Amino acid sequence: MLHDNGLPAAAGPRRSIELDSVEALRLLGSVSFGRIVFTQHALPMIRPVNHVLVDSGDIVIRIHDGAALTSRTRQAGAPGVVVAYEADAIDPQTHLGWSVVVTGYAHPVTDTDELARYATVLRPWSQQTMDHAVRIRPDLVTGVRLTAV
Amino acid sequence: MLHDNGLPAAAGPRRSIELDSVEALRLLGSVSFGRIVFTQHALPMIRPVNHVLVDSGDIVIRIHDGAALTSRTRQAGAPGVVVAYEADAIDPQTHLGWSVVVTGYAHPVTDTDELARYATVLRPWSQQTMDHAVRIRPDLVTGVRLTAV
Repeated sequence: MLHDNGLPAAAGPRRSIELDSVEALRLLGSVSFGRIVFTQHALPMIRPVNHVLVDSGDIVIRIHDGAALTSRTRQAGAPGVVVAYEADAIDPQTHLGWSVVVTGYAHPVTDTDELARYATVLRPWSQQTMDHAVRIRPDLVTGVRLTAV
Repeated sequence: MLHDNGLPAAAGPRRSIELDSVEALRLLGSVSFGRIVFTQHALPMIRPVNHVLVDSGDIVIRIHDGAALTSRTRQAGAPGVVVAYEADAIDPQTHLGWSVVVTGYAHPVTDTDELARYATVLRPWSQQTMDHAVRIRPDLVTGVRLTAV
């Protein structure tokens, strides 16, 4: 009835610890990619992307011109489009690790110097041209760490 | 200006290959967790959860009673709530791997035998009681594999 994926179930005593926003953003900055979540035509959309944290505390991702989020952020104008951004590091065997979710407004990066700088640190994953970047200002930052007791 | 996360940028020639839905679901079934995405109060929500694929081709996840998705699926009735479900296996160093996104309607599992069966294979990640399950019927299945050329 159920497909066995060959992995042990996450068993044993364990607990989840809520993270404060500083620790949550630190963890998010310790990895290089996450998943951008937004709504398009009332449907939930999710795409894996790589990211950098910038000094302002914002999260910057690069996307290609045809990406749905590009047109969404352009159409929206101020105050921008509300998005969620998730990153995690969860062990596939034990399911221990952490997950962080940031919710905030996303805006296109328009400054050409900024775009050029992000282009050097955010390499596209595929051969598609990624000449656009989106900046997410964290409004709500939540996170959880899953540990063995 | 940019926080260096110590990881090399994903460089070198690479390409992305679109996956057909059979291969995409096979990959999703080869891992034990993913991320459920839905809209609540017009805001995008995302939560990591573990999953099983069942023979009908549906994805079943277990959630706890207080989870926002539980109340959303209960309120919605037929045809259910549209959700996205994402799973991936992306190398943190090279950014090679795959990502699969399923979009479809989510319904609460109400059959007690079914609930009991899922309870044995979907162990909760934390000490929260997970006595509810949600079934997602894949409507749109997309996936991409990122390979070195």
